[in-house]
Amino acid sequence: MQFTKLHGLGNSYIFVDLFSESLENKSLSELAVAVANPDTGIGSDGLILVGPSEAADVRMRIFNADGSEAMNCGNGVRASAKLAYEKKRVLETSFTVETNGGIVTAFVHPDEQGMVHEVTVDMGKPKLNRQEIPLTAGGPADEQHVNKSVQTSPVDEPFTAVGMGNPHAVIFVDDIAQAPVVEDGPKLECASFFPDRVNVEYIEMITPQEMNFKVWERGSGVTQACGTGACAAVVAAVLNKQASFDEEVTVHLPGGDLHIRWNEMDRHVWMRGPAELICTGAYYL
Amino acid sequence: MQFTKLHGLGNSYIFVDLFSESLENKSLSELAVAVANPDTGIGSDGLILVGPSEAADVRMRIFNADGSEAMNCGNGVRASAKLAYEKKRVLETSFTVETNGGIVTAFVHPDEQGMVHEVTVDMGKPKLNRQEIPLTAGGPADEQHVNKSVQTSPVDEPFTAVGMGNPHAVIFVDDIAQAPVVEDGPKLECASFFPDRVNVEYIEMITPQEMNFKVWERGSGVTQACGTGACAAVVAAVLNKQASFDEEVTVHLPGGDLHIRWNEMDRHVWMRGPAELICTGAYYL
Repeated sequence: MQFTKLHGLGNSYIFVDLFSESLENKSLSELAVAVANPDTGIGSDGLILVGPSEAADVRMRIFNADGSEAMNCGNGVRASAKLAYEKKRVLETSFTVETNGGIVTAFVHPDEQGMVHEVTVDMGKPKLNRQEIPLTAGGPADEQHVNKSVQTSPVDEPFTAVGMGNPHAVIFVDDIAQAPVVEDGPKLECASFFPDRVNVEYIEMITPQEMNFKVWERGSGVTQACGTGACAAVVAAVLNKQASFDEEVTVHLPGGDLHIRWNEMDRHVWMRGPAELICTGAYYL
Repeated sequence: MQFTKLHGLGNSYIFVDLFSESLENKSLSELAVAVANPDTGIGSDGLILVGPSEAADVRMRIFNADGSEAMNCGNGVRASAKLAYEKKRVLETSFTVETNGGIVTAFVHPDEQGMVHEVTVDMGKPKLNRQEIPLTAGGPADEQHVNKSVQTSPVDEPFTAVGMGNPHAVIFVDDIAQAPVVEDGPKLECASFFPDRVNVEYIEMITPQEMNFKVWERGSGVTQACGTGACAAVVAAVLNKQASFDEEVTVHLPGGDLHIRWNEMDRHVWMRGPAELICTGAYYL
């Protein structure tokens, strides 16, 4: 089986190009577990299959290292877009990608040799009303929750709630080094007023175009990079008038930088970030 | 850079063939750290360079995932031997490998297609006198320490001391599932009478030709496989008349099986075990 390994901000996947490779009669779940194992396989966060789609220009399926199939993944979409473009599975620099979480639009930024090191993904419209997050405290269900405390909260700080397909609580801090990620992250993640639990982001604004960022991911704890979290952080910054619509904000995540822009007109959030080739090869099943 | 990833009992390495590839002007230590990283590199326990030798048929250099250079590694030698033979860098099935820990002899067992899945390595003569281990308690320095307790020991069980280039303490148990690896391993590892510390092996004899095995590795704790530990276990079994000279013993390690034979004539220990190809490819530096 021919494969390509790519990463975005240290989130790495083994990619198989289903335009040229057939995995019929194989358990994709077992294959993902096998290739992701760093000891007896190649080693990665999972397996991504890029192939033909009936609904979009290409289809992407993501399997986690435990064999479960994921809905979507910002780092995975960027890398899939790089692969599809460089392999000429799409011919335009803007195209649609079908994921199990819906269809997203990707824009690749090729260099003069046609190589892509950076990709922008349209992450769609954030959901801002409490009932859409979902958040069951702090005010009316059909209103936004912007920099407000919740009386029954296990943490003192006010937060801004943002839905990016998954729920986020964004907290502003003066010094990112002092952010109580490990102390308060898990408390807020499991607060009863977030019925689906929540990802917790701490952000320190440097300028309206630049912020430092740390994240406590729902179910994963501290991670190096969270694409939807960076989007939620910039949406929260705009809602709190710390950043502006239509102006890209550079988010310094522990794993590297993402560039997020919230468009005023259609309210879509764009995420621009790296996708890097590690290796290509043949895997012996 | 062209590479091959192989593993032996889950101990995986990225191999570069210096007969065809040049790594001049590169920091091998930095390269090892980069390729071993599962997030931004290929992912492995380290990097092994197989190339020409002035002293033996091939030379092997091992760099750990932290960039340090290792002396030798049983799993690495087996995989290096498979690679050297299949790539026709050696033409005989028996050949010598220069390592930083000395020259070892490898025997490959090719199938009809010339592919190697199993390799035997001559691990040399065990050192059995206390001063050679080194062990500074339990009896005279120039005598063996076979199934004896030490009065000042932090653990009650008697042990057999064996040197295989590194020090081992082997303890017989009735039921491997009950072996106090995590409880007693670290205590014995750091006992003052093992001045270089010690690897601790627990073994349960099933028949004289078969044993179960668990290990507490010096500096690493519980691991899936330890080649020198399996050799020490079989030497200890022969010294305790639980196994015989010249008769192969199958050692069931948590990571898989090794087959160990202690030759009566020259007192060398042979280790036979798997070497498996995972993938080949091109890594983009």
